[in-house]
Amino acid sequence: MPDLDALRRRLVAFADARDWGPYHTPKNLASALSVEAAELVEVFQWLTPEESAGVMEDAESAHRVADEVADVLAYLLQFCEVLGIDPLRALAEKIERNERRFPVRPGGRLRD
Amino acid sequence: MPDLDALRRRLVAFADARDWGPYHTPKNLASALSVEAAELVEVFQWLTPEESAGVMEDAESAHRVADEVADVLAYLLQFCEVLGIDPLRALAEKIERNERRFPVRPGGRLRD
Amino acid sequence: MPDLDALRRRLVAFADARDWGPYHTPKNLASALSVEAAELVEVFQWLTPEESAGVMEDAESAHRVADEVADVLAYLLQFCEVLGIDPLRALAEKIERNERRFPVRPGGRLRD
Amino acid sequence: MPDLDALRRRLVAFADARDWGPYHTPKNLASALSVEAAELVEVFQWLTPEESAGVMEDAESAHRVADEVADVLAYLLQFCEVLGIDPLRALAEKIERNERRFPVRPGGRLRD
Repeated sequence: MPDLDALRRRLVAFADARDWGPYHTPKNLASALSVEAAELVEVFQWLTPEESAGVMEDAESAHRVADEVADVLAYLLQFCEVLGIDPLRALAEKIERNERRFPVRPGGRLRD
Repeated sequence: MPDLDALRRRLVAFADARDWGPYHTPKNLASALSVEAAELVEVFQWLTPEESAGVMEDAESAHRVADEVADVLAYLLQFCEVLGIDPLRALAEKIERNERRFPVRPGGRLRD
Repeated sequence: MPDLDALRRRLVAFADARDWGPYHTPKNLASALSVEAAELVEVFQWLTPEESAGVMEDAESAHRVADEVADVLAYLLQFCEVLGIDPLRALAEKIERNERRFPVRPGGRLRD
Repeated sequence: MPDLDALRRRLVAFADARDWGPYHTPKNLASALSVEAAELVEVFQWLTPEESAGVMEDAESAHRVADEVADVLAYLLQFCEVLGIDPLRALAEKIERNERRFPVRPGGRLRD
C-alpha cells in the first residue's frame, strides 16, 4: 500500500494538473473537509447505535462509507499541504497532550 | 516520525485504557469527526481568502489549526478502526476513480 | 404566508402521519440539521466571496439554496419541538445578551 | 413574543450598527451556520438516544442547547436576509413538495 506521504504527493499532482490551485485556499479546503464529514454523518443519521455498527455488511453502504473516508482524508491532506502542516506530527503531539490531560483512572470513564 | 499505523495503535490503546469503547460507535465517531471539522472551519469563517492563507503566521492560530487537524485525523482513524476500514487503501482507490472521472484537459478548470 | 408556528404544526403532523417519531431523537435531529447546513455550505465551497453574492441569479442554484434553507429550518423546528424549546424566545434572549456583550463602538468592527 | 420578522430586523440593525456587513457574505454566513449546527451536535455526540432526550433537565445543558438554537436561527435569518430569501415561504414550499414525495402509507416508515 502507498503511505500517507505518497498519497499526499498524488493529490498535489492531481490538483496541479487540473489548475485547481486557485480554489484550494485554506478556507475553502476546510469547508470542503467539513462537507465531506457531514456526508459521512448522513450515512448514520437515522440509524440506532446498533445499526450503525453494521454499515459495512451492506456492500452499497460499505462503499459509500469508504468513499467518504477517502474524501475526508483527501481534503485533510490538501489542507495540510497548503498550510505546511505535518498531520502525523500534529497528531503525535496531540496524543501526548491528551495523555497528560486525561490520565487513566481505575474504573473511570471520563469524557471532555 | 511515527507513521499512520503507529498512531492508530496509540489511539486504540488510549481509548481502551479509559474504557471509552462504549462511546465509540461509528455513529458517534462520525459526529465527533464532523464537530472537529467545524472547529477548523470556525478558524476561517470571517477571514478573506487572502487572510486565510496567513493563519500559520500567528503562533496562537497556528497552534489552534494544528490542534484541530490532529482531532480530525484522530477521529477519522478511530472511525476506521471500529469499522475495519483501511483509510490509505480507501484514498488510493478514490484517487484512481477520480483520475478517470476528471481527465486532465488543456486549460480546463473543472470542478464537480 | 403561514407563520413559524403554523409550519411547525404541519411538520409535526407530517412526521406523525409517517410514524417517524422513533427516528426523531434530539441527537438525530441535531445531526440532520448539521447535514443540511453542510449541504448549504457545499453550494458555496469553491466560490469567491463575490461569486457567492450572486447565487440567486441562476435559477438552479437559487432553487437549491432555498431548498437547503427550508431543510435547515425544518430540522431546527423539529428539534425544538421534541425538546420543548421556543426558538423565537431563545433568539430574542440571545440578541439581548449579545447587545450587552458587543456594545457598539465608533468605528469598531469587532468579532468574537 | 416577537415574531420571526421582528427578530430578523433586530439582527440586521445589530450587524449594521457594528459594521459587520463586509463579513456577512452568503458564503461566510453559511459557514457560520454550519459551525453553530456542529456546536449543537457536540452537546449530543457521546449521549445515547435516551440520554439525548433528557438534555433539558439539566439547567446548564438546557441553556447551552437553547443558546445554540438561537445561533443557528440567527445565522439562518442573516443568510436569508443577504440573499433575499423568505425562509417561511421556502419551508412552506418544501413541505408541499415533501407531501407529494413521501405519501402516507399504512404501516410504512419510509425514510430517504
